[in-house]
Amino acid sequence: MSSLYGENLKITVFGQSHSQAIGVVIDGFPAGVKIDELELQKFMDRRAPGRLYTTPRKEKDEVKFLSGLNENGLTCGAPIMAIIENTNVKSKDYDNIKLCPRPSHSDLVSMLKHGEGADIRGGGQFSGRLTAPICIAGGIAMQVLKGLGVNVGAHIYKIGKAVDDSYSTTSQEIPINLPDFPSLNPESASKMQDELLSAIEDGDSVGAVIECKITGVHVGLGEPMFDGVESRLAKILFGIPAVKGFEIGAGFSVADKKGSENNDQIVLDNENKIVTETNNDGGVNGGITNGMPILFKVAFKPTPSISKPQKSVNLKTMQEEVLEIKGRHDPCVAIRAVPVVEAAAAIAILDMYL
Amino acid sequence: MSSLYGENLKITVFGQSHSQAIGVVIDGFPAGVKIDELELQKFMDRRAPGRLYTTPRKEKDEVKFLSGLNENGLTCGAPIMAIIENTNVKSKDYDNIKLCPRPSHSDLVSMLKHGEGADIRGGGQFSGRLTAPICIAGGIAMQVLKGLGVNVGAHIYKIGKAVDDSYSTTSQEIPINLPDFPSLNPESASKMQDELLSAIEDGDSVGAVIECKITGVHVGLGEPMFDGVESRLAKILFGIPAVKGFEIGAGFSVADKKGSENNDQIVLDNENKIVTETNNDGGVNGGITNGMPILFKVAFKPTPSISKPQKSVNLKTMQEEVLEIKGRHDPCVAIRAVPVVEAAAAIAILDMYL
Amino acid sequence: MSSLYGENLKITVFGQSHSQAIGVVIDGFPAGVKIDELELQKFMDRRAPGRLYTTPRKEKDEVKFLSGLNENGLTCGAPIMAIIENTNVKSKDYDNIKLCPRPSHSDLVSMLKHGEGADIRGGGQFSGRLTAPICIAGGIAMQVLKGLGVNVGAHIYKIGKAVDDSYSTTSQEIPINLPDFPSLNPESASKMQDELLSAIEDGDSVGAVIECKITGVHVGLGEPMFDGVESRLAKILFGIPAVKGFEIGAGFSVADKKGSENNDQIVLDNENKIVTETNNDGGVNGGITNGMPILFKVAFKPTPSISKPQKSVNLKTMQEEVLEIKGRHDPCVAIRAVPVVEAAAAIAILDMYL
Amino acid sequence: MSSLYGENLKITVFGQSHSQAIGVVIDGFPAGVKIDELELQKFMDRRAPGRLYTTPRKEKDEVKFLSGLNENGLTCGAPIMAIIENTNVKSKDYDNIKLCPRPSHSDLVSMLKHGEGADIRGGGQFSGRLTAPICIAGGIAMQVLKGLGVNVGAHIYKIGKAVDDSYSTTSQEIPINLPDFPSLNPESASKMQDELLSAIEDGDSVGAVIECKITGVHVGLGEPMFDGVESRLAKILFGIPAVKGFEIGAGFSVADKKGSENNDQIVLDNENKIVTETNNDGGVNGGITNGMPILFKVAFKPTPSISKPQKSVNLKTMQEEVLEIKGRHDPCVAIRAVPVVEAAAAIAILDMYL
Repeated sequence: MSSLYGENLKITVFGQSHSQAIGVVIDGFPAGVKIDELELQKFMDRRAPGRLYTTPRKEKDEVKFLSGLNENGLTCGAPIMAIIENTNVKSKDYDNIKLCPRPSHSDLVSMLKHGEGADIRGGGQFSGRLTAPICIAGGIAMQVLKGLGVNVGAHIYKIGKAVDDSYSTTSQEIPINLPDFPSLNPESASKMQDELLSAIEDGDSVGAVIECKITGVHVGLGEPMFDGVESRLAKILFGIPAVKGFEIGAGFSVADKKGSENNDQIVLDNENKIVTETNNDGGVNGGITNGMPILFKVAFKPTPSISKPQKSVNLKTMQEEVLEIKGRHDPCVAIRAVPVVEAAAAIAILDMYL
Repeated sequence: MSSLYGENLKITVFGQSHSQAIGVVIDGFPAGVKIDELELQKFMDRRAPGRLYTTPRKEKDEVKFLSGLNENGLTCGAPIMAIIENTNVKSKDYDNIKLCPRPSHSDLVSMLKHGEGADIRGGGQFSGRLTAPICIAGGIAMQVLKGLGVNVGAHIYKIGKAVDDSYSTTSQEIPINLPDFPSLNPESASKMQDELLSAIEDGDSVGAVIECKITGVHVGLGEPMFDGVESRLAKILFGIPAVKGFEIGAGFSVADKKGSENNDQIVLDNENKIVTETNNDGGVNGGITNGMPILFKVAFKPTPSISKPQKSVNLKTMQEEVLEIKGRHDPCVAIRAVPVVEAAAAIAILDMYL
Repeated sequence: MSSLYGENLKITVFGQSHSQAIGVVIDGFPAGVKIDELELQKFMDRRAPGRLYTTPRKEKDEVKFLSGLNENGLTCGAPIMAIIENTNVKSKDYDNIKLCPRPSHSDLVSMLKHGEGADIRGGGQFSGRLTAPICIAGGIAMQVLKGLGVNVGAHIYKIGKAVDDSYSTTSQEIPINLPDFPSLNPESASKMQDELLSAIEDGDSVGAVIECKITGVHVGLGEPMFDGVESRLAKILFGIPAVKGFEIGAGFSVADKKGSENNDQIVLDNENKIVTETNNDGGVNGGITNGMPILFKVAFKPTPSISKPQKSVNLKTMQEEVLEIKGRHDPCVAIRAVPVVEAAAAIAILDMYL
Repeated sequence: MSSLYGENLKITVFGQSHSQAIGVVIDGFPAGVKIDELELQKFMDRRAPGRLYTTPRKEKDEVKFLSGLNENGLTCGAPIMAIIENTNVKSKDYDNIKLCPRPSHSDLVSMLKHGEGADIRGGGQFSGRLTAPICIAGGIAMQVLKGLGVNVGAHIYKIGKAVDDSYSTTSQEIPINLPDFPSLNPESASKMQDELLSAIEDGDSVGAVIECKITGVHVGLGEPMFDGVESRLAKILFGIPAVKGFEIGAGFSVADKKGSENNDQIVLDNENKIVTETNNDGGVNGGITNGMPILFKVAFKPTPSISKPQKSVNLKTMQEEVLEIKGRHDPCVAIRAVPVVEAAAAIAILDMYL
């Protein structure tokens, strides 16, 4: 494992789905900061299950700070360590998975890489549950960034054919009050929910794309060649389970564009400030922020746990078998991943500020 | 700048478009390896200009090793340092760019970040020329990987609407003899060339997507959460100028897929070896290789240097101006970037092997 | 703070003297290892207070593993996280220190660096208490090293004028059963204890040198120039509070030696194996292990907390004041630091093995 | 090899004694700085051989910058790469060493670690010659530090029994004009030279201790636990060949001190600024600078190359042999190492400033 991210703000995520606790150590966080624990908990709740179109499992993600704060609740310069205790964990029935790894899960690679040590209960260290510690660190990072005038906001951009293209690419505004279903355009949101309902009915799941915008970033952040903004963002975002793609600005659509369409022409705005007319570069040139909003998209594959019968191989008998996964899972991991993407982006950006 | 990549195989790329030399230091390379300099030079030539649909500039990218080899030409365990001298550099006419930064180039961010120090001659440190040192390191890495049974091959997947989908996603074969135009399907290749010709005629440029396949990788490479295979690949690939997107396996197309379609079902092949029926995960689960070929795509934006008039702002007068960029540039940076993507991937993979 | 050590085995120490818990995250530890928790606890006890010539404070350093183990208690490849809860912490009376920083403590630098956030209760993050997490990680590392035939042993080498030079520099043996007072020669140990008693009586403290030996290390460990064995050892050892010097082999005594005395001549031993006659190089040449025992010494300054009156400056009034530190402290921090030095060395060595 | 040092200012040293060139890449250096190449060359000359009591070998260490500067000679933010060409290298006669490794040299470990690849010509990558690139990077770093009011100065503190204790530990002054023989007290300098002459006459060598002082450093530099000032300094200093010990402030002498003697009492100076009466902590508490001068010492072992006959083992016949090393070597490596220690310290300090 290398559960460490960051150069100046170093976060280490620990825990497994069924370990006693999961959590994060945050090293390099500035001293003297008052963490708003209430706001943090609200942020955590956006990821927690139990909402619309998410798993009905109960997980109260209560954050406990065990170190890093002084007697007045200010960060003291020492590493901040926070845990979420794993309660009501039922590890009884993973024997079947140990024999028959689930398709497109990490069961097989974990068993082959970690041997007898492999902890595949609930997905072990590969569980989506490990995104909660990312939200702890990211939630705190967002509080600091806010003080610097930097805001981070994400929404569901696409599920199936339904696309929410209501984000402006050039404005420095982010819609603050995300609806309960985290997409902005009511019409496309409704179509997305149809996709989800249909997947749930079929015992199936569906993929999605999340779009994220970061505003208020000054010019000059990012250290090319290999520590540019995109390299930093991609490195942390691919740490989120189920992520299969990352693109910035116009992303993969560039293949279909001419330079004359894609180039962001340089102009003056009303206040005589240099801006670009379009934002196909997504706020970054040569790995360095150019002052326009940072805009990127992340692709999440469909939840691999589905009720439909699937082929697998019994590792003991070395025979093919038909596997049926019971339990109720998120029909689309991306729904709960919206705050996770924000958190990851906030960690990456704050790391570059420090 | 942070021109360093790698954990065990550490490469540092140095140079600017018009510095005396560009090059790379490779630290952590195994001792006792004989570098095939002829094969390396052939690999370098695939990136060099002067081929079909590339800039007619002459750059003979001759590699000189100044350290790291012993008296018998074997790597000695010390850092390998190699340079390519910059000859025939004409820096005369960049005064205009200093006043009027080119749209979607790094001129503006560099001038704002580096101030008086900024070296914008020929794009300075942001020039595509800096991909040559990546090819030196990657070319050597590919030689070592070959000895381990690992092969890396890329091709142009898409330009405009033309798509070359001739790569098999599940076979462990890579077409070895790439045609002179680096795409495999003659029909789509011909359409891609039409796009290029049309862009050249219009004084315009065009974007593209490169697809890359890595075969022969054993199960278990990659250290999640943040040093998984995708994080490692993305970090280095976004170091290549003009890259705007990275996706693995089914990538962004997952948004449009059901879990039952997207999951790679686990089966036995003819030799009773565990494989997957499809390869939508692109050879990676949970950041760890699963033994199937690693398959990823990289999006390259259109060359920002175009002849068509564009808007910019004169930094002295703070007035908008119309900019026309002279000279002949690559109509599509991706053509010469095919070996660069291979090189970057090889560095990332070898780094994980060491 | 940068509380992270290691390249492959990455440990992050967290906590303050009076935070709810202190502990460590260990990332990169091999999977499938059974940790002997009983043996670990015994190792922890060697550092715990309450023994001869140590502070009579009660701290039961009970280790709790919250993540990283699977259902069978084997390491699972995920980060290992362990805590020690801080119980019975009395933070009442640090107001005086906040006004008048203690000489040769970290109070002053912490208050100036961390401002209002500074946590100086019990020394905060600078407390010797933070060596307990080092012992958790190091104790586990020693268990793995033992399996590889590598042993680590330390003892008190010097207090005042009393020197215990009973360690052989060339033999691959380490005395296993350290006496209760951690020095080997009864005669010098008795003199050391006289020094301690005299310091206690005077309300004073005394410094010391710890010597450490690592046996069974194969030839070839260490990556010069800057990741040689000494650089790695020094980096972690200077993380232990109160350390003021590190030397390997003949160390500072080389200034007084001729090359002909100091050189370790190369000979064959009884089994025709290449060894050196002496071990002035301390088992390392050019940063790389040479197969002889690694031998190094670490200097610990006298406990800065003493009962004698000392000068300080009142930060509010900006007047000089006379400070008297109450409470009972270790008369010599080195006594309890013997296992800490072993632990730190074990972490550094295992990191190089992985 | 891991020839990389630094977190923000990353330097990578490359080259072997007999490679075509040696040099350094400096990544992360601030943009817009004018390097004074003349002053740098003067600094390099202090390390070059040919002076009093050094080897009469001719090595003109001429620095060539191949990248990192713009057209006006200002640093441009891209990595600075500089080389020194190796001229007049005679590699003829190392066959004997390949058979019979020299005692206390790196020949044996290199041959065992690097196998056929080992480059032992002139000591290969372990040669003292590789300290020249450290001086390039350090010389530049000193120029930047000077602008920040930070100065670095070293001298020979001890050879044999002769000690130069003329450095004040508490004053923020460094003697600027070091005499040709780099020690300050004429009397002890004369005794040191007697030691050197006697070693030369005997075909022997002698060890030494260098003392270094850094003034003008503000309070608060250093990131404990493991990136404190001492950890950073030690890591780079042990990268210098022949270094066997590092101590800060009172160093190993603390073993012989009471807390009441060793503690640096806190007082007000004439300008009502908080200082300490003594400087036994060497300017650092808890890994963090306290505003007093940083003071440390480094032990250099005697040059291992001596003319006197020594025992070694013929690796082919596996018989013991008597080895005589011809050629003229530095009788004491420390003499030329004085600027190297300054350079290494400057790199470490500037890295912490950036």
